[in-house]
Amino acid sequence: MGGDFAPANIVAGGIEALRESNNRFEIIFVGIEADIKNEIAKLNADGLSYSIVHASEVIDMHESPTVAFKQKKDSSIVVGLNLHKAGKADAFLSAGNTGAVMSASTLLLGRINGVSRPTIGTFFPSQKGQCLLLDAGANVDCRPQHLVEFAMMGSIYANYILNSPNPTVGIVSIGEESSKGNEVTIEAHRLLKESKLNFIGNIEGRDILKGKAQVIVCDGFVGNIVLKFAESTLGFLKSKFKSYASESIFKKIWVGLMYGTLKKILKDFDYQEAGGVPLLGVKGISLIGHGSSTPKAIKNMVYRAEEMAAKQIDKQIAKLMSNTNTNE
Amino acid sequence: MGGDFAPANIVAGGIEALRESNNRFEIIFVGIEADIKNEIAKLNADGLSYSIVHASEVIDMHESPTVAFKQKKDSSIVVGLNLHKAGKADAFLSAGNTGAVMSASTLLLGRINGVSRPTIGTFFPSQKGQCLLLDAGANVDCRPQHLVEFAMMGSIYANYILNSPNPTVGIVSIGEESSKGNEVTIEAHRLLKESKLNFIGNIEGRDILKGKAQVIVCDGFVGNIVLKFAESTLGFLKSKFKSYASESIFKKIWVGLMYGTLKKILKDFDYQEAGGVPLLGVKGISLIGHGSSTPKAIKNMVYRAEEMAAKQIDKQIAKLMSNTNTNE
Repeated sequence: MGGDFAPANIVAGGIEALRESNNRFEIIFVGIEADIKNEIAKLNADGLSYSIVHASEVIDMHESPTVAFKQKKDSSIVVGLNLHKAGKADAFLSAGNTGAVMSASTLLLGRINGVSRPTIGTFFPSQKGQCLLLDAGANVDCRPQHLVEFAMMGSIYANYILNSPNPTVGIVSIGEESSKGNEVTIEAHRLLKESKLNFIGNIEGRDILKGKAQVIVCDGFVGNIVLKFAESTLGFLKSKFKSYASESIFKKIWVGLMYGTLKKILKDFDYQEAGGVPLLGVKGISLIGHGSSTPKAIKNMVYRAEEMAAKQIDKQIAKLMSNTNTNE
Repeated sequence: MGGDFAPANIVAGGIEALRESNNRFEIIFVGIEADIKNEIAKLNADGLSYSIVHASEVIDMHESPTVAFKQKKDSSIVVGLNLHKAGKADAFLSAGNTGAVMSASTLLLGRINGVSRPTIGTFFPSQKGQCLLLDAGANVDCRPQHLVEFAMMGSIYANYILNSPNPTVGIVSIGEESSKGNEVTIEAHRLLKESKLNFIGNIEGRDILKGKAQVIVCDGFVGNIVLKFAESTLGFLKSKFKSYASESIFKKIWVGLMYGTLKKILKDFDYQEAGGVPLLGVKGISLIGHGSSTPKAIKNMVYRAEEMAAKQIDKQIAKLMSNTNTNE
């Protein structure tokens, strides 16, 4: 029931995933039953492997996450996560209130041993293919140890989802030397150097798109700002082309001719279609999508959830965390 | 003598500024006299209003700023700043070691009363024209009061250089609400709200290129990362076009045809030609350029220095700071 276009886009994306994958999995739609049925009726969903679990309450996009979680026990987020916790679903995904999904996931599923703070990882395009940036906004004021945990969780995720065994790890800072950075990153650098991760050192803002590291670690304040800045470059470019096209009819036709090529080349900057981002560090599989997720984004998020559940990302993280804790 | 192409590019840019402006000002080249004369001999500099002041030492790009400043009293940075301090020059500019220029400027010229930390401001392109981001990397771990001072100095600079009286001021954060941010930005938000500046609240990473605020305030860690990330988008786009062009001879020709238009449209992302950035908050006019500054960048930096000196930006900042301290 969460997100700006719920339940329409959520149901449409889920149904499309079932159709496209030939019922490779089951989807349980959680929310107000009548609304969901109403949406399904608009689609051709006969023979598809879905079911509905009624949840009478809805957490709004702007509600305080912790208050909402406590008060709305029959919301789709809480009911859905409880289905996952009880083993009736292998993964949970939502395009709803990000804070509510995060805190409900953390409180209901619990943190993996050794994880102080669950983190949101997000893919970033680069000249060398996709890389993973975390934390993307879940944790604002971080301590050095938190950044080390993000690096560990990110390494597991990159290993299993990006198929990058022993991925390179970089920490976002303002100079290459280990002495450059703020208090938190300088200490995190020292800790990462001592770790068993494939740590390559500090990376600067300009190194992110160059693909200098496959796992890019920073606090959620920096990560969120860089991510949103990157997301906005496409709009900025579009506005530039638009204003150029408006200068003359010739230029308009010319930009029209370039359009197809530009769209193909700039598609990496279109983060809307990427699907959701995982909340790593909880005992389970929980994914969070943009509030404005399209059906295609939801479909991609379903596939990502399926992959994460199949590869047991949460168990892999737990294994790495417990090994590290034992050895050190 | 500072920068990757010194003194060649520095001299060439300075001479070009004199020629283009018809000797509107005088330039004093500071550094190893023989090297400077050697560069000038390559150019047609007859009748141009320049002079040379010899300085026997050179501060390298990777030297520790404070050590270099103490040990190399006859470096071009120290000698040049002393000329400015003594009133023999109205402004100082360098493409040398950024840290050394910053600390030498601060120590030799002194801080303006009420300024805890001088700041580097840099222009950013936006959909609504240029805006000013500060701090761009001079101050890493900041307290809330520092951000307020950056906002004050940035407002003066935007007023006089961008011709934006009463410019809008935004603080970079991860959500619009005043409760969103890290500890430092939340408190800085509160202080800015109480100030007499035209404070419009938090702005997110996606709002920077949209031009939501004319003066964008953040700590130097965030500012430097966003700036360098932004600078790298041009290279990323180029690499995308290049790899598209390499797919077939047809695509290569097509990208070749688009090239001129793309260059025109993407020029806002080319930060190399922008010239230097000012160090605001010192008693004087001090500008710092990229180590890799082209002659054109140096020329633009000379014009910027001339403008800042003519408009007495340092005095304007001092006035605002003292008024604020008296009133509060």
